[in-house]
Amino acid sequence: MAVRRFAIITEADARQIEAGTTVELEARGHVTPLAADTLRERRVTVVTAGTADPGLPADLAPVSPVRRVTIGSDHTGVALKAALVAHLRQGGLAVYDCGTDGPDAVDYPDIAAAVGKSVVRGEADAGIVIDGAGLGSVIAANKIRGVRAAMCLNVTLARYAREHNGANVLALGSTLVDTAGAIAIVETWLTTPTKEARYLRRLLKIRRLEETF
Amino acid sequence: MAVRRFAIITEADARQIEAGTTVELEARGHVTPLAADTLRERRVTVVTAGTADPGLPADLAPVSPVRRVTIGSDHTGVALKAALVAHLRQGGLAVYDCGTDGPDAVDYPDIAAAVGKSVVRGEADAGIVIDGAGLGSVIAANKIRGVRAAMCLNVTLARYAREHNGANVLALGSTLVDTAGAIAIVETWLTTPTKEARYLRRLLKIRRLEETF
Repeated sequence: MAVRRFAIITEADARQIEAGTTVELEARGHVTPLAADTLRERRVTVVTAGTADPGLPADLAPVSPVRRVTIGSDHTGVALKAALVAHLRQGGLAVYDCGTDGPDAVDYPDIAAAVGKSVVRGEADAGIVIDGAGLGSVIAANKIRGVRAAMCLNVTLARYAREHNGANVLALGSTLVDTAGAIAIVETWLTTPTKEARYLRRLLKIRRLEETF
Repeated sequence: MAVRRFAIITEADARQIEAGTTVELEARGHVTPLAADTLRERRVTVVTAGTADPGLPADLAPVSPVRRVTIGSDHTGVALKAALVAHLRQGGLAVYDCGTDGPDAVDYPDIAAAVGKSVVRGEADAGIVIDGAGLGSVIAANKIRGVRAAMCLNVTLARYAREHNGANVLALGSTLVDTAGAIAIVETWLTTPTKEARYLRRLLKIRRLEETF
């Protein structure tokens, strides 16, 4: 479904725009106050019209803000995962924890694939995956069609990963961040939208790579 | 082709092992001194037998040390790319530079795909790709079957990316590293092999994800 363009978005319009999708607003366009509330509630991304290619898919931008998260870790990240699950649930998010929970070694590709598949199936708005450095999970998760995974060492990278790259899976290195640092990274990443049409256009190129290779 | 197992590797054996592949040596096995030279010359990876699954493919470990590199960058990384190309050529490596070379904006997925495809086609042993933060290039490059791409901010991550994750594409953030830092990262990454069977087993799981999703 291609991005729809509006000159005015009324409350009635806002109610029938599919939740979690992206629409264009013309440069001098207008959103009524009630419609703005509804768009926020329905987590619709509004980009400035004219900057996007005609035909840009409406489902490229990750759903923002995130309300449902799938999280997983290998054996190195069990403690960090537990801390993040508690933090996210305390913040009112729905969290699906897909393990592991013990000290026995598990293979990061299995965990990354479970988290990534959960996101692309729509069971969650976003995913978090933890291994020793986060690098391997990024490779494995990105092998799943529809996943855009980024390893973020700090909040600056977390913001970039979302603003520029529409990352719907965040990878963390359990040996590289402490709990407070990880929470700051996660918070930034969960709350930063992907809004600029020039960046969405590049996400479309990534989608085409998935379809070809 | 599955990994072959040896109790002794003689010079005659070493000459007929395919260049760039991986073999197993039994725990008390022996490599003759001449064979050791030949294995190094042919860039054969030797892992300890018994740790790997029977049937582990012989072509999982990236070819090491790297002799031929494909490099590319978006418009933000032109100066850093030029410095790396000069450094690598000075070190005797063959470098294929696939652009960009000017200030005009290019899309990171195009560059990452060009570098990744060059590596999986066997035109280079490894690839380097640069954009503003390196995160987008990692997503795009990993969409290519056979690419394992990692963004490395420092030499520790570069070593991990290679030792643990067999990364055959390195992504750098032009806004995050200076030239000296980038050269140190590249040198560590180019010269670190992937040798441990437990890590290779996980790379096989990544390959299976590529075949499925």
